[in-house]
Amino acid sequence: MELKLIPREELERARALDDLPLLADMCRANALVAVKRAGSGHLGSSFSAMDVVVHLFYRELNTAALGFDHPDRDVYFSSKGHDVPGLYAVLHALGVLPPEQLLRLRRLGGLDGHPDVGVPGIEANSGSLGMGISKGRGIAWAKRFLGRGGRVVVMTGDGELQEGQNFEGLQAAAAHSLGNLWVVVDRNELQSDKLTDEILPLGDIEAKLRAFGWHVATCDGHDHDELARVFAELHAAGDMPKALVARTVKGKGVSFMEHPQALSEGGGTYRWHAGAPDDDSFARAHAELLARIRERLPDLRLAAVDAIGEGSIGEPESGITTRTRVTDEYVAAAYGDALLELADDHPHLVVLDADLASDCRIRPFELAHPERFHESGIAEQDMVSAAAGMARQGLLPVVNSFAANMTIVQPGNADETRALVRWAVDDAAGNVAIRLAIGPSPRRLELPEAAVGRGAVIHDGTDALLLAYGPVMLHEALTAAELLDGRLQVVNMPWLNRADVEWVSELAEPFGDVFVLEDHAPVGALGDSVRRALDGRAVTVFGVEGWPACGTPGEALRFHGLDGASLADRIALALRARASS
Amino acid sequence: MELKLIPREELERARALDDLPLLADMCRANALVAVKRAGSGHLGSSFSAMDVVVHLFYRELNTAALGFDHPDRDVYFSSKGHDVPGLYAVLHALGVLPPEQLLRLRRLGGLDGHPDVGVPGIEANSGSLGMGISKGRGIAWAKRFLGRGGRVVVMTGDGELQEGQNFEGLQAAAAHSLGNLWVVVDRNELQSDKLTDEILPLGDIEAKLRAFGWHVATCDGHDHDELARVFAELHAAGDMPKALVARTVKGKGVSFMEHPQALSEGGGTYRWHAGAPDDDSFARAHAELLARIRERLPDLRLAAVDAIGEGSIGEPESGITTRTRVTDEYVAAAYGDALLELADDHPHLVVLDADLASDCRIRPFELAHPERFHESGIAEQDMVSAAAGMARQGLLPVVNSFAANMTIVQPGNADETRALVRWAVDDAAGNVAIRLAIGPSPRRLELPEAAVGRGAVIHDGTDALLLAYGPVMLHEALTAAELLDGRLQVVNMPWLNRADVEWVSELAEPFGDVFVLEDHAPVGALGDSVRRALDGRAVTVFGVEGWPACGTPGEALRFHGLDGASLADRIALALRARASS
Repeated sequence: MELKLIPREELERARALDDLPLLADMCRANALVAVKRAGSGHLGSSFSAMDVVVHLFYRELNTAALGFDHPDRDVYFSSKGHDVPGLYAVLHALGVLPPEQLLRLRRLGGLDGHPDVGVPGIEANSGSLGMGISKGRGIAWAKRFLGRGGRVVVMTGDGELQEGQNFEGLQAAAAHSLGNLWVVVDRNELQSDKLTDEILPLGDIEAKLRAFGWHVATCDGHDHDELARVFAELHAAGDMPKALVARTVKGKGVSFMEHPQALSEGGGTYRWHAGAPDDDSFARAHAELLARIRERLPDLRLAAVDAIGEGSIGEPESGITTRTRVTDEYVAAAYGDALLELADDHPHLVVLDADLASDCRIRPFELAHPERFHESGIAEQDMVSAAAGMARQGLLPVVNSFAANMTIVQPGNADETRALVRWAVDDAAGNVAIRLAIGPSPRRLELPEAAVGRGAVIHDGTDALLLAYGPVMLHEALTAAELLDGRLQVVNMPWLNRADVEWVSELAEPFGDVFVLEDHAPVGALGDSVRRALDGRAVTVFGVEGWPACGTPGEALRFHGLDGASLADRIALALRARASS
Repeated sequence: MELKLIPREELERARALDDLPLLADMCRANALVAVKRAGSGHLGSSFSAMDVVVHLFYRELNTAALGFDHPDRDVYFSSKGHDVPGLYAVLHALGVLPPEQLLRLRRLGGLDGHPDVGVPGIEANSGSLGMGISKGRGIAWAKRFLGRGGRVVVMTGDGELQEGQNFEGLQAAAAHSLGNLWVVVDRNELQSDKLTDEILPLGDIEAKLRAFGWHVATCDGHDHDELARVFAELHAAGDMPKALVARTVKGKGVSFMEHPQALSEGGGTYRWHAGAPDDDSFARAHAELLARIRERLPDLRLAAVDAIGEGSIGEPESGITTRTRVTDEYVAAAYGDALLELADDHPHLVVLDADLASDCRIRPFELAHPERFHESGIAEQDMVSAAAGMARQGLLPVVNSFAANMTIVQPGNADETRALVRWAVDDAAGNVAIRLAIGPSPRRLELPEAAVGRGAVIHDGTDALLLAYGPVMLHEALTAAELLDGRLQVVNMPWLNRADVEWVSELAEPFGDVFVLEDHAPVGALGDSVRRALDGRAVTVFGVEGWPACGTPGEALRFHGLDGASLADRIALALRARASS
């Protein structure tokens, strides 16, 4: 179907009329087109937040005057980053984003479906929900530290406030008296597809924010006069951080996407949180928005999408892709089915959700076994620990979870610690985790400096190579080498997940056996890195097998066969095995 | 030095007198001995919580009547598990733990330094701070679900309330109307070594708890009459969860360990949070406790520790251990030094702490550069996100962090999803994470069932082996195999970090090349497992290198060379290379 965008010149006409509700509707129409074209995106909360975002950028923030590179500029970003299509539309209206980029939403080389700081006007990426206030208070603290002007305004969802990290950020911002931090809660009362009160009631949000030491205001988030009044109040509120609870309507601007109508038509489920509308729904929504816009701009001109950035966009590539072949099988649905099937044989099986029941296809379980469906709201830590408590009572909890990654190093002595800290601060490209032994070093080590991804020989040997790291395990490694009497070469290798392939290969080449000594479990660190580097060579990894024993360090090391004497025995055994083979 | 324990019979005499303050002091004395003997342990908060713990077990909880195995028993545990020496002493007083076990604190086969459910009377392990309320509300919900009697009483620290997860648990417990859940806050006003108000002020704890929908009471946590009155009030409070903020003194019972005296003598630092006291301090503390105890039990009898469980205890083993060789070098201190050294060259370097400044040796930095030292309190998520915000303003944030592990599987079709969910529910020994594709499957696959750690051939081939998993990547793998015309054998292997070594070895034996196709980065999952299993053989792992591209799934797959056609090219290239070598 043919898609049409409202060009920037038309948005400038609305700006000249100083008509913020009109600008908001025009941005809604363009966000709708971008999402329809992308085939996915989040309209419901883009629309509920739109009036606040338009009001901020056209009335409140100094970015219009200073631009997005000035150190004293106001910083705005949304913690619920999935509402970014609305922000993109506003940035297009402001001339920050060209139309052809707006139309490359969720396309290769285009605009991400969630905010990315590589895009002009985007001040912060969004990760898990609940991180925005913490990031914002970090920015606000840094602005004060650096003597920079400008406020930080963070938009959050209401369901998002179920995340405990919000309250860590709220308490820290109050403790640090960050008066330059504002939070706007987009209080649209809906989560991904149900009422916040049905998922997990938030109670009295204003009372919670006040209890955490914030100045709190509230108003209709779609009434620009009220927004102007409340923002003036926040300006006057002094040194405490400020919060506005903006009462909004999810899907605002398109009647059938608005709560409560949308909920009743969806049979209790809100359909417009994520995903592009079908052609008919799109046509109805776009027509409704354009009709209201034309009441103010009768001669509104539209630009055909296909005419914009001709050639630069194109349809999604065909060929062998995950989209070109699709069946009606969903493994996620099978997951939900399996839980339903298991429910009868397992009366103690309970399902815990953190507001992903539809994505995880566990609504059928919820409907069939409401008493065994447990909603924690958007609070994964709490959900997992609560599941542990339920398991302690003999229940069978089923939950979901996530994970992450970075460069990990562990120094073996004081000098190396200094060097690695310097490297992390001065040279490292990304995040670095430095693992440190808290206790005293078992012995003073001479550790030659080495390049990134490389270590150094600290004990010469003839038959076998042992890579180790950290003051404790290096001591055990050296003790083993001393007991093995010149047969074991020990190398300090502090780069747990960053091995220089060439260096490791040359290092290992002369030796019949290669051993790695981990300072924890024998998986996921140096042993695996060395195996990747020596791809095709045998590598024996020593580490803590099973649960770590509780005892004195010496008792625990010996229990796991990781003390110098045990290591010497284990290595000697391997050498004898090779000799006899 | 000679250590003496108060034997159980003497504690029974105090019980007969119904003298709770006396019982508390006697348990303090025994906890002190156990910690001194162990060489480490947490006395400060063991002592501040002791009166509440003694009052609960001797007056409130039904465990004295029902024992620790009855399903209707009251459940007590502490979220700040480091106060467990105090609980061990009480369990010894109750006859639940024999004296020889109390004396094996932190020893191999003895009592862990943090609670473990393998120990009689211990209801929950403690992990990171802030998890207790969530676990407790899980237990409370399960008790209600199972129709079981008994309350759940969770002890938390006050500094611990800086963790956001507490507020996730508080909000969920209120939403689920868990009237059978009690929380006691040990409000001793001190964190590991400084005042809570210096680390990060908690503000009005009672107001926060009330704002989260809890019934809140407060009293002197060392006054047993007040405790009796408040617990009676909680019993009458109905369906809402209940919290008692108990005003306590850290180190209570030993004058020089009590705040504020301890703080002033420590020059602003509290010395008695962790670690065993030196001989002199121990002697003074023990004498002070015994003097007060003898005021009530003049003929108190003590048992020499060495006479208890003769032979079963012994001194820590000597020989090659991390304790037998110790220098005065601390890499942690070098870390702090390095930060101090870097501070001058890097005016934008800031250090973020989550109440571990002493352990991490960054107090010197704090003292030298207070304006560049940022305290987040015990709130690691918030600290990390705040650091991200600071980095966005050009600062160089330095923080600390942690991680975890479990069995990970990813099914390739609906049947396998059902089978793996069943396995996770029916058979899995530990926690299981099931990764699921949310979208529709690219093709319907026939996946033969396979045992734990094993997969199955889904496409026969002659020259090379490719292991893959999940509906999306299996489709690309099969597409590659179809293009390679009988040369590539494809195996579905859903066990990402659990490979059956024997099976993988036999499977790979006939093939010259082994390839693994990951559904994410090429590290940390199936590729590494196969390398461990095929130790000594070359394995080529395909996965998402660098940051995942944003685009249609097809665009992204092709961008990363993971679509069927690209995979076929990459594999054909490798086969040609082998042929020509």
